[in-house]
Amino acid sequence: MAKMKAAVFVEPGRIVLDEKPIPEVGALDALVRITTTTICGTDVHILKGEYPVAPGLTVGHEPVGIIEKLGSAVTGYHEGQRVIAGAISPSGHSNACLAGFHSQDGPDARHGWKSIGGWKLGNTIDGCQAEYVLVPDAMANLAPVPDGLTDEQVLMCPDIMSTGFGGAERGGVRIGDTVAVFAQGPIGLCAAAGAKLAGATLVIGVDRLPARLQTAKALGIDAVVDAGTVDPVDEILRLTDGRGVDVAIEALGSQATFEACLRVLRPGGTLSSLGVYSADINVPLDAFAAGLGDLSIVTTLCPGGKERMRRLINVLAAGRVDLRPMVTHRYKLDDIEAAYELFAHQRDGVLKVAITP
Amino acid sequence: MAKMKAAVFVEPGRIVLDEKPIPEVGALDALVRITTTTICGTDVHILKGEYPVAPGLTVGHEPVGIIEKLGSAVTGYHEGQRVIAGAISPSGHSNACLAGFHSQDGPDARHGWKSIGGWKLGNTIDGCQAEYVLVPDAMANLAPVPDGLTDEQVLMCPDIMSTGFGGAERGGVRIGDTVAVFAQGPIGLCAAAGAKLAGATLVIGVDRLPARLQTAKALGIDAVVDAGTVDPVDEILRLTDGRGVDVAIEALGSQATFEACLRVLRPGGTLSSLGVYSADINVPLDAFAAGLGDLSIVTTLCPGGKERMRRLINVLAAGRVDLRPMVTHRYKLDDIEAAYELFAHQRDGVLKVAITP
Amino acid sequence: MAKMKAAVFVEPGRIVLDEKPIPEVGALDALVRITTTTICGTDVHILKGEYPVAPGLTVGHEPVGIIEKLGSAVTGYHEGQRVIAGAISPSGHSNACLAGFHSQDGPDARHGWKSIGGWKLGNTIDGCQAEYVLVPDAMANLAPVPDGLTDEQVLMCPDIMSTGFGGAERGGVRIGDTVAVFAQGPIGLCAAAGAKLAGATLVIGVDRLPARLQTAKALGIDAVVDAGTVDPVDEILRLTDGRGVDVAIEALGSQATFEACLRVLRPGGTLSSLGVYSADINVPLDAFAAGLGDLSIVTTLCPGGKERMRRLINVLAAGRVDLRPMVTHRYKLDDIEAAYELFAHQRDGVLKVAITP
Amino acid sequence: MAKMKAAVFVEPGRIVLDEKPIPEVGALDALVRITTTTICGTDVHILKGEYPVAPGLTVGHEPVGIIEKLGSAVTGYHEGQRVIAGAISPSGHSNACLAGFHSQDGPDARHGWKSIGGWKLGNTIDGCQAEYVLVPDAMANLAPVPDGLTDEQVLMCPDIMSTGFGGAERGGVRIGDTVAVFAQGPIGLCAAAGAKLAGATLVIGVDRLPARLQTAKALGIDAVVDAGTVDPVDEILRLTDGRGVDVAIEALGSQATFEACLRVLRPGGTLSSLGVYSADINVPLDAFAAGLGDLSIVTTLCPGGKERMRRLINVLAAGRVDLRPMVTHRYKLDDIEAAYELFAHQRDGVLKVAITP
Repeated sequence: MAKMKAAVFVEPGRIVLDEKPIPEVGALDALVRITTTTICGTDVHILKGEYPVAPGLTVGHEPVGIIEKLGSAVTGYHEGQRVIAGAISPSGHSNACLAGFHSQDGPDARHGWKSIGGWKLGNTIDGCQAEYVLVPDAMANLAPVPDGLTDEQVLMCPDIMSTGFGGAERGGVRIGDTVAVFAQGPIGLCAAAGAKLAGATLVIGVDRLPARLQTAKALGIDAVVDAGTVDPVDEILRLTDGRGVDVAIEALGSQATFEACLRVLRPGGTLSSLGVYSADINVPLDAFAAGLGDLSIVTTLCPGGKERMRRLINVLAAGRVDLRPMVTHRYKLDDIEAAYELFAHQRDGVLKVAITP
Repeated sequence: MAKMKAAVFVEPGRIVLDEKPIPEVGALDALVRITTTTICGTDVHILKGEYPVAPGLTVGHEPVGIIEKLGSAVTGYHEGQRVIAGAISPSGHSNACLAGFHSQDGPDARHGWKSIGGWKLGNTIDGCQAEYVLVPDAMANLAPVPDGLTDEQVLMCPDIMSTGFGGAERGGVRIGDTVAVFAQGPIGLCAAAGAKLAGATLVIGVDRLPARLQTAKALGIDAVVDAGTVDPVDEILRLTDGRGVDVAIEALGSQATFEACLRVLRPGGTLSSLGVYSADINVPLDAFAAGLGDLSIVTTLCPGGKERMRRLINVLAAGRVDLRPMVTHRYKLDDIEAAYELFAHQRDGVLKVAITP
Repeated sequence: MAKMKAAVFVEPGRIVLDEKPIPEVGALDALVRITTTTICGTDVHILKGEYPVAPGLTVGHEPVGIIEKLGSAVTGYHEGQRVIAGAISPSGHSNACLAGFHSQDGPDARHGWKSIGGWKLGNTIDGCQAEYVLVPDAMANLAPVPDGLTDEQVLMCPDIMSTGFGGAERGGVRIGDTVAVFAQGPIGLCAAAGAKLAGATLVIGVDRLPARLQTAKALGIDAVVDAGTVDPVDEILRLTDGRGVDVAIEALGSQATFEACLRVLRPGGTLSSLGVYSADINVPLDAFAAGLGDLSIVTTLCPGGKERMRRLINVLAAGRVDLRPMVTHRYKLDDIEAAYELFAHQRDGVLKVAITP
Repeated sequence: MAKMKAAVFVEPGRIVLDEKPIPEVGALDALVRITTTTICGTDVHILKGEYPVAPGLTVGHEPVGIIEKLGSAVTGYHEGQRVIAGAISPSGHSNACLAGFHSQDGPDARHGWKSIGGWKLGNTIDGCQAEYVLVPDAMANLAPVPDGLTDEQVLMCPDIMSTGFGGAERGGVRIGDTVAVFAQGPIGLCAAAGAKLAGATLVIGVDRLPARLQTAKALGIDAVVDAGTVDPVDEILRLTDGRGVDVAIEALGSQATFEACLRVLRPGGTLSSLGVYSADINVPLDAFAAGLGDLSIVTTLCPGGKERMRRLINVLAAGRVDLRPMVTHRYKLDDIEAAYELFAHQRDGVLKVAITP
């Protein structure tokens, strides 16, 4: 049985490069040879043991590659085709999918983590920080990549672009809106780009890291607020003449940012939450307007599936956004442990790391 | 200057029947002679000092009556016409109204209570537990009552029917949904009726008071859960084969019910909150699916305005629901202090009290 | 190779009972032994040659039956299980499905009939007026039937109940709406039932056949208009005090009904079209308000897939509607030619015919 | 009684500059001294007698000016304030407004032209091609103009920008969509700009006038199709790989463009119609997919009201679009007859004409 290299979770604190068999291809699967992948903040949660996965699991959920082999029941693709797949890989045929909740695919019952059945790669099945990955339900998930786009150009589609744009979309951002985005890491930057793309006329990015605020400006965000030097709630109310924002996007997963989002909303506004939280949230009575503010709070797990990828690729192909500046570092798969070391500690202004086997 | 009787807030713990001048009619106002009104749970918050209003304010926001006098700029009505007005009285012409947030009428700036600018009667201006009430922006707020409906039939339109139905509507209840409603007081009963009317095929009412669960059954709710004898989360998951509900409606304003609503939601489900909270809410990490459950939380302040009232009256006129069983007690305005005494202590199985001057 | 009986389209004017091989089961298919099926108006279009299908095709798209055999890649079901499948059988994994247009599954290109790629059974592949039917993409399409419901109770789910309810849903019917439904055949009756279930407070059914208007009344429609004796537009405007309806549902597919729908709409109203048209439609300038009426026209092809079926079954199981009165006649599969004879000529007050192999 | 100059409709073929009394200010009105206005295509319909108005009416519905006098019941503004008002002037307090159909304000009954009750200026009451105009329901309609924007920058807000953007909004354009806009006159150009602003990644403009296609390119439209040299349906299907467009916007009001819009839609696509039609429309059976294509057709009358104006002004102030290139000619009010002569004959590449009293 042929072997491949893969980044494997061993125990909290240890993800190591190991050898594993190249997986067998089931009827609905596709085996994809990875050409580029990356590390996500969630992978760091896995590394630290904050998000539990099975020891021995291959990590990674952002694949760009070439179809190596198709399952016997898979039609509509050919081997050698260049593709991406979303971080979330819906089957398309579950009740959740057919009801439109593709990220919540899987068993209908829900408790705690089981709710996110649509996230499989690098979570419940082997992921793509490896030479090969098995993409389940290939017909629902593989999206061809046009020749004109490089691997690095589409590398953000599987997760952070889909998640970030999803935050703007679920927030209902529309022409003329004012939007605040709390945290300007990769997800927040994509959320801000998505909000602008959807017609927001004032997009305000908030962070404490000057480098990230600078990147935000470079990506065309209208205004930035340094939460390390001013109170962001006060500053946003000032920037909006006391009116508050139509949509506030939470892109960190912390109490402070969640609460600040609520406090900057106009009456009837929407808090669109993208963060992965690691503790209970306190909702202050006044920030919640005692339940009388006609407020909405929506959460979004990264939309996946090939149609989603197709649309995001369209956005890139049309040049509407350019996310290449987000790839700040490049590593070989052989050096992925070093890449984790850099990324987990947010060293050297890292935003995203391209990994090539 | 002619005088009238009115229930006036004096200080925390004291609402008394007093005499006040019959108000002057401004250009956009209508003076309505009250024929029937009622006491709301929010009025009890005012009585207890939990919701602050100015001493001397006439309380009450659920008016049924006869137009006594129209402002000079008011057209489309005639004196002697029988009307209701919503608890919330939007102007129609504010930016909030024109943007569709009629309950959030008023100054654009928002902090704390100021957000609910649309609630004027018995809050920022004199209310209708009186012989007369001045309805502001009359052209946006007065809805004629058809002869075929009694005062008591339409008495629930201004607040609890509008609020309760609003909970089902904002929750997006649709044909085939499963809906849980936590608390079966007047608002919760109306929310359950609204959910059923909107097509829910399994509506589950939760309360601790056997009398309320009995009323819920009488109003046609599909299943009731006595939270005093079973764990409502377990029971609702059992009733839904572990699937959870599409929409959970919070109709009390407490930590326990808010949290239970989250816990019974299916992935992608919606918590529709109607309660008036009096303390911070804790959102447990697991109930919130760490932000990854594609959940929505929406809050609704009672929709008002004459078009809303027209539609609710239609529902009653068509016999789709009959809320008369909710009027459990009747008092003269002269005895309103006794009515408060009964209602504030929830004595004698009281649901709603009809007050007639 | 084992044989089975099947109703086969031979040429315009001839659908005959014939023998065909029991089909081979592909990896994603399920072979279902039919226990009950029915004839649809569209089948009559096929019979008459108005809707072209390939000679030799087995007709029928409304299956109730027992799983006989599952494809090798199908999981989540067992042989012997009682199921239905929708008339439209989406794969779940096409771009159209992933975008939420499950009825428009199939190749992305669209011209003329090719647009309705989701309708496969009895259209592009063999249908279910036979002893067995092969259901494609079984995991997306098979919905278990609870023991408490008979075949005839769920027989309307696959097509007319899904289509009719779809008309109300796509029309956006909500609590307090007034809805007119033009034509009270099986689809129109279901549309009217759906509109009422979604909260409409005045549902007006229009037809020329007194028997159908009587059935409409029996099903609880609020008002009926006999288009053979009065002008339905005038009458509906009279019934709505000149206001017009919020939603008008077209359930026939003719110029007269389409145009009348437009004429009874209030400004900003929605025409929800369910009919299968056989000629161009003329949109009169005044009925269209010259393009200035904020009107919407939406068309709906029967929603399919197992989640849709699950929800419709819920509605029946909850007793919210009872469509059994629609089954007016019963035939053995052996006598299906006689059933077509009756149904095509609308003899004997026929609404729907149950066919049992 | 003081007099003012005004462009008055006399009879079909004649709009002349005349003298009229400066109007009396009612309680809810504002008298605005016009500083800039323009001529709309609809005004040309009035001139030609194609759209009937009362002889003696002052024409024009796109006002930019200074508040001269406020009605006695108007608050929230001051005399001397620079404002615009929308072409459509909703009261805010009618049932239509309260239901969200601000353009369909007015009497509930609807037949033919009566449906567009929200269009008052230069239609049912005197318009703004004059030295002064009376804006009804001033509190719902007057939007302050920030100092940083010139009259010509905001001149498109009252009608063509609001209408054009409305076409993109009602069409539901979202990130990644492909949109075709038929006709690239002022409305079509604004619709294309709106589609792009809302996130469309491929916006295709269609026209027969090379000058307009050139303007479209200058405004950043992705692709233009010259309907005078190629078949636009073929060309758009070619540009979309046979897939069709998500949204097709009709911006002319003709049979050819309406029909072409239908033919380029993908299954489930939306035709968003902005045109003012002057004849019946024929909907070809195949273009309509026989009613089975899950298509939507929506029409939009220019959204008005001060909140709409506020949002459009935001778009301009943020520099998201620059519509100044649309003002191709400038005339004094004294020369408005010459301006009509030029505009009605579409001479000299005219797009919009600025008129200054």
